[in-house]
Amino acid sequence: MKKLFAEFFGTFWLVFGGCGSAIFAAAYPDLGIGFVGVALAFGLTVLTMAYAVGHISGAHFNPAVSLGLWAGGKFPAKDVLGYIIAQLIGAIAAAGVLCLIVTGKSDFVDIGGFAANGYGELSPGGFSMTSVLITEFVLTMFFLLIILGSTYVKAPEGFAGIAIGLALTLIHLISIPISNTSVNPARSTSQALFAGGEFTSQLWLFWLAPIAGAIIAGLIHKALFSKE
Amino acid sequence: MKKLFAEFFGTFWLVFGGCGSAIFAAAYPDLGIGFVGVALAFGLTVLTMAYAVGHISGAHFNPAVSLGLWAGGKFPAKDVLGYIIAQLIGAIAAAGVLCLIVTGKSDFVDIGGFAANGYGELSPGGFSMTSVLITEFVLTMFFLLIILGSTYVKAPEGFAGIAIGLALTLIHLISIPISNTSVNPARSTSQALFAGGEFTSQLWLFWLAPIAGAIIAGLIHKALFSKE
Amino acid sequence: MKKLFAEFFGTFWLVFGGCGSAIFAAAYPDLGIGFVGVALAFGLTVLTMAYAVGHISGAHFNPAVSLGLWAGGKFPAKDVLGYIIAQLIGAIAAAGVLCLIVTGKSDFVDIGGFAANGYGELSPGGFSMTSVLITEFVLTMFFLLIILGSTYVKAPEGFAGIAIGLALTLIHLISIPISNTSVNPARSTSQALFAGGEFTSQLWLFWLAPIAGAIIAGLIHKALFSKE
Amino acid sequence: MKKLFAEFFGTFWLVFGGCGSAIFAAAYPDLGIGFVGVALAFGLTVLTMAYAVGHISGAHFNPAVSLGLWAGGKFPAKDVLGYIIAQLIGAIAAAGVLCLIVTGKSDFVDIGGFAANGYGELSPGGFSMTSVLITEFVLTMFFLLIILGSTYVKAPEGFAGIAIGLALTLIHLISIPISNTSVNPARSTSQALFAGGEFTSQLWLFWLAPIAGAIIAGLIHKALFSKE
Repeated sequence: MKKLFAEFFGTFWLVFGGCGSAIFAAAYPDLGIGFVGVALAFGLTVLTMAYAVGHISGAHFNPAVSLGLWAGGKFPAKDVLGYIIAQLIGAIAAAGVLCLIVTGKSDFVDIGGFAANGYGELSPGGFSMTSVLITEFVLTMFFLLIILGSTYVKAPEGFAGIAIGLALTLIHLISIPISNTSVNPARSTSQALFAGGEFTSQLWLFWLAPIAGAIIAGLIHKALFSKE
Repeated sequence: MKKLFAEFFGTFWLVFGGCGSAIFAAAYPDLGIGFVGVALAFGLTVLTMAYAVGHISGAHFNPAVSLGLWAGGKFPAKDVLGYIIAQLIGAIAAAGVLCLIVTGKSDFVDIGGFAANGYGELSPGGFSMTSVLITEFVLTMFFLLIILGSTYVKAPEGFAGIAIGLALTLIHLISIPISNTSVNPARSTSQALFAGGEFTSQLWLFWLAPIAGAIIAGLIHKALFSKE
Repeated sequence: MKKLFAEFFGTFWLVFGGCGSAIFAAAYPDLGIGFVGVALAFGLTVLTMAYAVGHISGAHFNPAVSLGLWAGGKFPAKDVLGYIIAQLIGAIAAAGVLCLIVTGKSDFVDIGGFAANGYGELSPGGFSMTSVLITEFVLTMFFLLIILGSTYVKAPEGFAGIAIGLALTLIHLISIPISNTSVNPARSTSQALFAGGEFTSQLWLFWLAPIAGAIIAGLIHKALFSKE
Repeated sequence: MKKLFAEFFGTFWLVFGGCGSAIFAAAYPDLGIGFVGVALAFGLTVLTMAYAVGHISGAHFNPAVSLGLWAGGKFPAKDVLGYIIAQLIGAIAAAGVLCLIVTGKSDFVDIGGFAANGYGELSPGGFSMTSVLITEFVLTMFFLLIILGSTYVKAPEGFAGIAIGLALTLIHLISIPISNTSVNPARSTSQALFAGGEFTSQLWLFWLAPIAGAIIAGLIHKALFSKE
């Protein structure tokens, strides 16, 4: 139960911090943080909560991560569903609070679909479904390779939180223009629910591609890098 | 006594570095650091002083942190008042030196109320009192969850200074447009004193919301995450 | 073999993340990450994979690094060729996937020669061949001094991945305007192949200068800093 | 002798990386790194070389640091002069190489006095001599408090390089508009020599203020924070 609370708080923080910085601060006139600030924010949500609750739940905050760790033999099948539900509740709760804060600004203009993910017309840079599919697959695969590798018994102890958090920053530096960056079905779901419209009907891709990439990474890690 | 000096220097540095970067460098024409630079500066004040004097005073630099740690059972009640006074003196001294430096620039134009915090008309992005209240509450609550979690006995040793400092950076990435980001009553007090006017009459919120969030976090941590 | 896979994945990630962020996100209207974001991205590719696979292959991801470590007496001559081939395959594969993603954006305009390196007319800031030669030589020499020094037995354990990754960020902060920053013949080769034209005929410099700098660093390290 | 070489390389890197990023990349049209990138670059020169040669020379790279550590009882008087000379030679050599690289760009326009430090008319933001004096004094004092505190026996081991490097980043985030940021007489000397003119006659301040701040910090540390 303690673990599920940790996943709830961690995923809440990921959505509140990552999507919140995108909604409130990215496009602020002249002084806004831009994509570089949003990328930093997403990464720091994971870095900070990894040190705060990593020793409790393992700090997944992401259904694709839970499934990738399961595929890599590092997470028991029986815990997967509970984790994913806790992550979804955390993400949706965070999106709800963001929504509440937004209502306090009378002239609020949402320029980015409440930070939801999309392809085609809904891709920030107009990238096709195939481009988004490849990008999300490759990025989540490497995200999991980094998670599995940096938490491996031979990796330097204690540094995984830095490597994993900054990996998420890097992933956003590459792909915000392509898909608004998901690599995380929970984060995509919460934002699509609040953005509505087309975003909801594109949501399947942001479950499929990240989870496929994560599972392949789990299998690669097991086959190549953890032979003992 | 040594501890109070450490809190004095730490809070001086937080205000001097964080608010100083906002006042001098954020809006510098063309090359200015923007909100992303200010967010980085605030975080680095805490990161740097956490390693410098954390082993002396615990590196609070913030009345809400002292009270949140007390609520979480990690800081004795008898030390709280002394810490808060040292923090306030440090913050006010820093704002005074910033003021002194500003007088050496004849054409200085203060665009941001000397980096003070505010809501409604005084919110950078025009967010209502309720939005600011929610934001400051949630952000300080997570700030304390990260502080309590990353300094917990099972967390990787030595990394807390990085996690806590960068948590403050993240908090600023989200909320500078909303409240100019407080999560720290000492930092709000020093700037309101020098900015004057409406800023002073809004100061109550930047004591209430951060402290409430911090205390809730202390209770959550005690109830959920430190059962032994 | 495990080592060669690690080098393949690491160099893939370096090119995909570093060059990908340059191609997709650097010049995005208004919110783009600019050179500072690209510099961060390149550094984080190495930081993240250093923790993920550093314990397997040593995390070179760069022919100049393999040769510099060999010159410094830290890498056996018999492994150099295999490493370089794995690095080249990884870099070219990544450039291929980037190319594939680009085809999904109908109005894609490539402003930077697919992130290839160049001098003279092909230098972003119009720097001469000699300037580029000096810059690439000096930067790769220091890159290797940092790699050799921070992995030395007396250096603090575990931190090398941070120091080396952020060294690459620093190198880009200095030299993107000069040469688009190489210090890595594999990264230069993959991008020149896809950019074609003049970029291919300038490729010799981005093998010569980095490797010369790396070997000099290896000799300096051996002569001055590792006397035991 | 090994130590002096380490100081030479470290100070070369500080000037080459910090001032180089300012000269080449800060004001690059549209994509330039701005003050935030320059601040990051200066900090990363120290962070990277601290891990590379800190175990050899202690990684001062700055006459004020050597004198502050001496005042704090952490560095023998007999070594001070040698260190300062090695630092000056390193800084001047780096400025020379930067100069050489600049000559390879025919249309090079130097907008910032070759990154030299200044006050009054030569302050980027037009700050008076007194403002610059106070700023440089306070910032160097805190720089040394952080150096002395984070390398203290009770501080977490290995993290000092991160805290000290990022302290220099923070210092630049605050003060580039005020003095172009020195806190380092060697860095000021090399750039003033190449910038010439008024910059040379203002150089005294960038020896006086940093050294005074550093020595006061050494005395504070000895009196307050290292009582055993």
